[in-house]
Amino acid sequence: MKLYECRATPNPRRARMFLAEKGISVPLVEVNLIDGENRDPAFLAINPRGLLPTLELDDGTRFDEVMAICRYFEELYPVPPLLGRTPVERARVESLQRRAEFDGMIAGSEVFRNQHPKFADRSLPGAPQQMLPAIPELVARGRAGIARFHDWMEEALAKSEFLAGDALTMVDITALCAVDFHVWIDIRIPASNVHTQRWHAAVSSRPSASA
Amino acid sequence: MKLYECRATPNPRRARMFLAEKGISVPLVEVNLIDGENRDPAFLAINPRGLLPTLELDDGTRFDEVMAICRYFEELYPVPPLLGRTPVERARVESLQRRAEFDGMIAGSEVFRNQHPKFADRSLPGAPQQMLPAIPELVARGRAGIARFHDWMEEALAKSEFLAGDALTMVDITALCAVDFHVWIDIRIPASNVHTQRWHAAVSSRPSASA
Repeated sequence: MKLYECRATPNPRRARMFLAEKGISVPLVEVNLIDGENRDPAFLAINPRGLLPTLELDDGTRFDEVMAICRYFEELYPVPPLLGRTPVERARVESLQRRAEFDGMIAGSEVFRNQHPKFADRSLPGAPQQMLPAIPELVARGRAGIARFHDWMEEALAKSEFLAGDALTMVDITALCAVDFHVWIDIRIPASNVHTQRWHAAVSSRPSASA
Repeated sequence: MKLYECRATPNPRRARMFLAEKGISVPLVEVNLIDGENRDPAFLAINPRGLLPTLELDDGTRFDEVMAICRYFEELYPVPPLLGRTPVERARVESLQRRAEFDGMIAGSEVFRNQHPKFADRSLPGAPQQMLPAIPELVARGRAGIARFHDWMEEALAKSEFLAGDALTMVDITALCAVDFHVWIDIRIPASNVHTQRWHAAVSSRPSASA
């Protein structure tokens, strides 16, 4: 088994942090996404979508998408549960995880990709067939998403230690990776969001945060 | 239990079709998204994100996001399995489902919302805080996504009866709802994509397709 990933980028970090919280070690293969190595024929032969992370099993089966990869490991190694402990909890974690993904991770990606010169021809993640000119208007839309993300986190973390309750879940992992990614676009948790600041310090201090 | 949804729109249809394939009946509450009823205070009191579908349990617990809702029912009613039968299958279904969602459903939404006069101030789904001007450049990006979606479906359906193998899964449900949604923006499966045409006729003829 191996995980194709890119050390510097936020989506592979979600998978690495998830694995570290589970205590699972998977051999990592670096693909430099920033320099566009994910669009080279060598990687497109592995994943025609050009997406990272991509998991490869020993029998050659491969699949992409962070949540598909994390759910696979959650089934194989259910302890500690990171996707919820009951059907209702799992539904809530999935819903909140997607919220963190859309308003945090994807909104950040829209800001980053549509204003960074290195991504001027890469409006969307992935393979050459996704190469389209940057759309500067998406920067404002992304920033609005991140503002909603900040408001939501502060409201949730005023009520509970973690975003989905009293234990760390994938919601926190996605949100932490999004918050740290936003530093690239010079956006930080507002200083007045004291609950989110408390949460960020606590989650950042876990060994998995530097996995 | 009740499901807040909107009869005319594609995302709630995914949930209705999933429930119909399971043989589950849930009371439906119509919220007219086209006319913006999901942004009225009455619905925002139910879901501050303004998103449909939203599931409400008998104890008042509510959550949104189609996949969270479908996964909840998959756990409670595992037969027939619509999200895969083994950990690897479930990972593949999740990955492919997201592909159908991003390149089919969300790409279609970008085309529709960013060119339709009724959505001129609703570039993204959901609540008033998401009201941003349409971004016409997203129409081309969305169309490129749908072209990838068509290519991918044709390639997959040349190899198997359904998109994720020999049985209907959520991948087919999302893809069917996306294909039918694309008619709104006057995009159809290319006539030369014979495998996708065969699949579309077969899946459309299931009773769940008109649920």
